[in-house]
Amino acid sequence: MENRTIALGLDYGTESARALLVDVKTGKEISTAVMEYPHGVMDRQLADGTPLEPETALQHPSDYTEVLKSIIPEAMKKGGITADEIIGIGIDFTASTVLPTLADGTPLCTLEEYKSQPFAYVKLWKDHASNPEAEEMNQLAEERGESFLMRYGGRLSSEWMFPKTLRMLRKAPDIFHKADKIIEAGDWVVWQLCGNERRSACQAGYKGMWSKGEGYPSRDYLKTLHPDFGNFVEEKLDTNIYALGKAAGNLKADWAEQFGLNEGVPVAVSIIDAHAAVLGTGVADAGKMVLALGTSTCHLVMNEENVPINGVAGIVDGGIAPGFAAYESGQSAVGDIFLWFMRNFVSSEYEEKAKETGQDIFSYFEDLAAKVPPGSNGVLALDWWNGNRSTLMDANLSGLMVGLTLTTCPQEIYRAIIEATAFGTQAIIENHEKQGVAIKELYASGGLAEKNELLLQIYADITGRSIKVAASSQAAALGAAIAGSVAAGSQNGGYDTFKEATSSMAHVKEKIFYPIEKNQKIYKKLYKEYKRLYDTFGRGTLETMKRLREIRDEAAH
Amino acid sequence: MENRTIALGLDYGTESARALLVDVKTGKEISTAVMEYPHGVMDRQLADGTPLEPETALQHPSDYTEVLKSIIPEAMKKGGITADEIIGIGIDFTASTVLPTLADGTPLCTLEEYKSQPFAYVKLWKDHASNPEAEEMNQLAEERGESFLMRYGGRLSSEWMFPKTLRMLRKAPDIFHKADKIIEAGDWVVWQLCGNERRSACQAGYKGMWSKGEGYPSRDYLKTLHPDFGNFVEEKLDTNIYALGKAAGNLKADWAEQFGLNEGVPVAVSIIDAHAAVLGTGVADAGKMVLALGTSTCHLVMNEENVPINGVAGIVDGGIAPGFAAYESGQSAVGDIFLWFMRNFVSSEYEEKAKETGQDIFSYFEDLAAKVPPGSNGVLALDWWNGNRSTLMDANLSGLMVGLTLTTCPQEIYRAIIEATAFGTQAIIENHEKQGVAIKELYASGGLAEKNELLLQIYADITGRSIKVAASSQAAALGAAIAGSVAAGSQNGGYDTFKEATSSMAHVKEKIFYPIEKNQKIYKKLYKEYKRLYDTFGRGTLETMKRLREIRDEAAH
Repeated sequence: MENRTIALGLDYGTESARALLVDVKTGKEISTAVMEYPHGVMDRQLADGTPLEPETALQHPSDYTEVLKSIIPEAMKKGGITADEIIGIGIDFTASTVLPTLADGTPLCTLEEYKSQPFAYVKLWKDHASNPEAEEMNQLAEERGESFLMRYGGRLSSEWMFPKTLRMLRKAPDIFHKADKIIEAGDWVVWQLCGNERRSACQAGYKGMWSKGEGYPSRDYLKTLHPDFGNFVEEKLDTNIYALGKAAGNLKADWAEQFGLNEGVPVAVSIIDAHAAVLGTGVADAGKMVLALGTSTCHLVMNEENVPINGVAGIVDGGIAPGFAAYESGQSAVGDIFLWFMRNFVSSEYEEKAKETGQDIFSYFEDLAAKVPPGSNGVLALDWWNGNRSTLMDANLSGLMVGLTLTTCPQEIYRAIIEATAFGTQAIIENHEKQGVAIKELYASGGLAEKNELLLQIYADITGRSIKVAASSQAAALGAAIAGSVAAGSQNGGYDTFKEATSSMAHVKEKIFYPIEKNQKIYKKLYKEYKRLYDTFGRGTLETMKRLREIRDEAAH
Repeated sequence: MENRTIALGLDYGTESARALLVDVKTGKEISTAVMEYPHGVMDRQLADGTPLEPETALQHPSDYTEVLKSIIPEAMKKGGITADEIIGIGIDFTASTVLPTLADGTPLCTLEEYKSQPFAYVKLWKDHASNPEAEEMNQLAEERGESFLMRYGGRLSSEWMFPKTLRMLRKAPDIFHKADKIIEAGDWVVWQLCGNERRSACQAGYKGMWSKGEGYPSRDYLKTLHPDFGNFVEEKLDTNIYALGKAAGNLKADWAEQFGLNEGVPVAVSIIDAHAAVLGTGVADAGKMVLALGTSTCHLVMNEENVPINGVAGIVDGGIAPGFAAYESGQSAVGDIFLWFMRNFVSSEYEEKAKETGQDIFSYFEDLAAKVPPGSNGVLALDWWNGNRSTLMDANLSGLMVGLTLTTCPQEIYRAIIEATAFGTQAIIENHEKQGVAIKELYASGGLAEKNELLLQIYADITGRSIKVAASSQAAALGAAIAGSVAAGSQNGGYDTFKEATSSMAHVKEKIFYPIEKNQKIYKKLYKEYKRLYDTFGRGTLETMKRLREIRDEAAH
């Protein structure tokens, strides 16, 4: 057997972590191992029973290193890989997932005195308890005309590091004052593995309100939020921010021994999971938008210049690959809407017919919906079941469906929902193009891209763009491995640029989805109607959705 | 046993006819008998196989007299009623259900030479083949500024006598020219029974474009539609129109013998079924709106003055009871929407739970929806699944639903649909009141009024009015019997006015539905939102619904 060069991708998801071993020359995925976090997601109480406030979601940081002791050796064993073959390690992580530590990186929650303190733990990305703080930060930023708002489409999210930390300061000031560092979990893992605190530009840019040109928010802005918040950046963050594609350092001896790896293997700067998936889909270039199609959809695209545009979730220089400005947008519910429909509105008649054909209900409905010609259902929907993230950034918007008649059947509604999510993506594409960021073609990754061909065809027809599909079913982990191979560099058998690495290691499937002209023509007309509804209900002409929510909240009391 | 005075109500529905014997003093329903029409509804072919054009629905007129030979004796036998006890006969009929006859009333389809001619048969109310003719008549009437449009809320329906006859003239001119009379089936039955052609003001007013003040449409208007149509009124209609509450004549000897009745029993002028149901619900007075709640809803209310108002289906002086102008409005789908939901979107989980409770799916959902507090579903719908009859008269409108989220559950949607139909009724009420026709209280009859208490409570809460419910489950037949008792008059043991007759013979249930203040408050807010959507989508601000239909029709080709 020829000598192999292997990269190790470590992919930290919400419930579990995955190790993926990839052949650096071909991108072949050799073996993988997954493990759930021992403490899981704590959203009601801590391990000792301490109750948590609503909308909280915590993790235990020791889980992050603990799982590696299992999944790295397991993957190596499965693939017959030896330590000598592994040339680099990359890490991708959910974000903003943040924790408070001492100056040496010790998490506060591991100290005996703080183990019953919820704010001493890792706050997971989906912890939304800081909604009020985000609201406050938005309001103040608007009043002051803060320029950072522009990089985030005009709104900060409660999921990000600053609102989460402000809430810590408000609700648990002793933890805030005790913490020497507040750090993204991805950066913390890198720090643990190689002993260097190397904060990632991807994390800091998208979730930490940092930019290369302007740095962090001003002391004055922060002080106005709370007197003790003024020095937050200087005291608890590291203002050295590292671009992706760099090695953060080399694997420490003690970990190497525990994982069965060699000491000194290069470890890449951490990367957010969705952004890693872009690399794993083979994109390291401008004008190619990657849709990570899952319960929600994340849209990432790079541009050669950093053109400031409205209505996106974030713009970060070098946020995915060095030399490009990376734009992130999102639809807050996609697969979730399909699931909502299937869980609630499938009659036993359809269930039985699906059984007869031997299909699961999703693929049965896909077949039925494929037989509904575009436009013939007469139904149009706004895909805002979970609000609108881009381009409107308004969580109080809701789903709408129009064109219902007594003959409207379930598969017509299902198709209308898929179409609505495609129109939503088209609105995002248009938002980029109108402001000068070109989108030439689309790439798709994620669960829906693997399973639902009808959806991909509808997206091609509605966006008028061809769609290539990631060959890997674990694009984020592959992206992490790619980062590992670039951290190693060509002198160690890896690559010097993301472009070289992705073109060798990431692949798309043979089948490309091209727009069908006849369908495109009809969808253009429907999109006009979609946009009218979008603007009417989304930009204040009809405030119906907000009023319904107010009335609902009132009615609950 | 005391000597009884009995009225006979004959109720002609779409599929069958009913005879109901009612005690004139108390309104007690003594016995009833029902029979389906031997020829049924012919909508694909005639008895001899002659194919019919799309949207056609025909009947055979001899069925109408034939069934009486069975149902009258059967009802009498069941109730132990003798011929001497029956003092009057009333007839209600679907409308506009029309047929061509010779001068003596012989239907053309009973002549050997015409028995294979579809246009020689009775055209049932739901025959919509005359859509193009109705469209043409509307257009011309608008161009000419015809005043009759005002009495029909601005639009004629293809269900009415004139468009049906114009189509006959176009498609089967020989039938048109051969016909000495074109007549409503209700009037034709009356003519058969007593030998007098006595056309009803109710039929002519609502379905025949006639009014007391202005008569029929002008010769000039008709001639413009077709040269041979100019003399239609003079040649084929009788311009003597009879108010309700009059006797049309007395039962002829030959029928009396065949039915087992006495010769000479007074026969009332015919009445449309929905209008008869108003009397059967106990309403013969101004300000009381009767909702006939079924697959669709018909709204009828009387006013002391004939105030011309927009957005109603018809206004007829003496259309229900003499001395009052009667206003008709309608919602084209109500129970039909509930049925659409239940047929298509009930999951097996709900089906099984319903089975466990021993309920049918409707009453199970009613229980679940009753537990959803007003406003808490956050969902609002426009009830236009089958277009909007009143106040917009636009068949191209469609259903809309807004406020959908990932947690919206089936019973919340079901409740939103019920609420939408109630908001639709409130819009109709408001349309009357704003233009000077007062609606003081509501009465309900029909299948939904009997079965769905939640619906009645929601209607009371949304309209802010108390609702009384017809005690009779066959309010139309009871109304016909009431008309029979008034045709008999007090000198024969009946009544001289509808007011006296209904107050003795028609009853409401004990349980009255009163608005609940707390609910009313929330629904007032929701109604504001409903009306904003109503005006936006219904009055041209957003033409989404029409465009979707255009695109749908295009996509079908």
